[in-house]
Amino acid sequence: MATGSSSYGIEQRRKGCYYEWMSLQAKHILDLKEALLNHHGSSDDHKLGELVGKILNDFKKYAEKRSELSNRSCSSYLTPSWNSALENGLLWMGGCRPSSFVRVIYALCGSQAETQLSQYLLDIDENVKVNHGVFMSDLTATQLAKINELHMKVIEKEDKVTKKSASLQENVADMPIAIAAYAMDLVDGNVVVKDALDKHEEGMAALMGEADTLRFETLRKIVEVITPVQAAEFLLAGKRLHVSLHEWGRVREEGSFGCARAEDATAARGGTGRSKRSATC
Amino acid sequence: MATGSSSYGIEQRRKGCYYEWMSLQAKHILDLKEALLNHHGSSDDHKLGELVGKILNDFKKYAEKRSELSNRSCSSYLTPSWNSALENGLLWMGGCRPSSFVRVIYALCGSQAETQLSQYLLDIDENVKVNHGVFMSDLTATQLAKINELHMKVIEKEDKVTKKSASLQENVADMPIAIAAYAMDLVDGNVVVKDALDKHEEGMAALMGEADTLRFETLRKIVEVITPVQAAEFLLAGKRLHVSLHEWGRVREEGSFGCARAEDATAARGGTGRSKRSATC
Repeated sequence: MATGSSSYGIEQRRKGCYYEWMSLQAKHILDLKEALLNHHGSSDDHKLGELVGKILNDFKKYAEKRSELSNRSCSSYLTPSWNSALENGLLWMGGCRPSSFVRVIYALCGSQAETQLSQYLLDIDENVKVNHGVFMSDLTATQLAKINELHMKVIEKEDKVTKKSASLQENVADMPIAIAAYAMDLVDGNVVVKDALDKHEEGMAALMGEADTLRFETLRKIVEVITPVQAAEFLLAGKRLHVSLHEWGRVREEGSFGCARAEDATAARGGTGRSKRSATC
Repeated sequence: MATGSSSYGIEQRRKGCYYEWMSLQAKHILDLKEALLNHHGSSDDHKLGELVGKILNDFKKYAEKRSELSNRSCSSYLTPSWNSALENGLLWMGGCRPSSFVRVIYALCGSQAETQLSQYLLDIDENVKVNHGVFMSDLTATQLAKINELHMKVIEKEDKVTKKSASLQENVADMPIAIAAYAMDLVDGNVVVKDALDKHEEGMAALMGEADTLRFETLRKIVEVITPVQAAEFLLAGKRLHVSLHEWGRVREEGSFGCARAEDATAARGGTGRSKRSATC
């Protein structure tokens, strides 16, 4: 891992890349909302399909840029300073769990909890009824079976990445790091330790790349199974979930951590108002 | 989760609890070093056994206090603000992996990589030979078999906790949170969301408690298998590994993140010098 001002520059570029992505997400949300409002039957499907494809491609480009910027050291991506503790506690390999995409589908179509859903909708807001899951509720049994099958496969792949990550974490407690730490009274690092930690971070960066690929592939496969209008609804729900968690986490943290952390967070966002920007995936 | 000044107070108490624990760890390191230096045969085993027992009990008390302070919201324990990104990237359920304790044993006795170990010791420092693993190298085949068996069981239990945590993370992308996020144009939370996030954090806090129990039980079982002098050597290695990672992570972060983060970290430790305090487990 490079150190000093050059690495400081890299960290700044990472933050910049994230905020660019957040701005793009806000645009995606607006585009999806507009497209769904203007959707009047299957004749508009081609336009919707193009938008969905563009959004997926934007995520792929973001993941590629993030991978380049990981620069063989991805610790700051695993628990980013720009996230709240709540959001970081929800992260899996520097992003959301691919399996959670499927859960969003379940939530939207209400396949798992239709009764509770109706009760919930009655409880919170009459408007929700017309805004929520109107297209996803038309999901066919065949589509649902394919989504279920995908869910199982994704969980399996997630588990494999999780196990590799556990193994990398465990390795740090073995040779040569553990022995170097034991042998030295002072905690100053040496070249052996530096190389071993670099290797660890390099391994984690590669694994984050694998996780990003799984996130992208899961999105792509879901979109293949559902219709363009359902895909637009699904992507909108995913993005809104993420931006909401980002904000709810921040608000909870401000309540919990007091002014210092809150001011840091506001400064980091480069403004004083509440950010409505999104940062899904 | 409580909010406002009372929660700010709780966060301060959490930080205080951590730094108290770090100070106690520094004392443990000194006590273990002294006891090992003064060890002259099995007649001193009783004294060493008492010290090992006291250290294990201190960890149990720390875990209990941490659990009380999690106050149904443990996100800040999962990626603590007092850790570097490197250290947070190595965390598993708010602490080290219990399986990493076993890896420290392997590293010390060199059962897995004796050749590389010798080469490594020759490379870095002649003194290491006399300081490192002198008692652990006497580990018998029976002891090693028991440690191996424990390792397998611990990995299995770790996997179970990891899966429960994955499930809790996934649930956030389902009812009612995903629907509330989708239904609202603004990201303001409502009481349904607040309750659901409280429930999520409560679940994670309970799981962190389970993980702490597994950490303690793994330590206890290891100590049952090895002799008191080996246990003292093992605990010393574990504590030194942790304090070293804490410091190496900080140093790498200073190089990577520049002055702002480094100053924050120094201020948080309440001083300007390098902290030698330990924070194992």
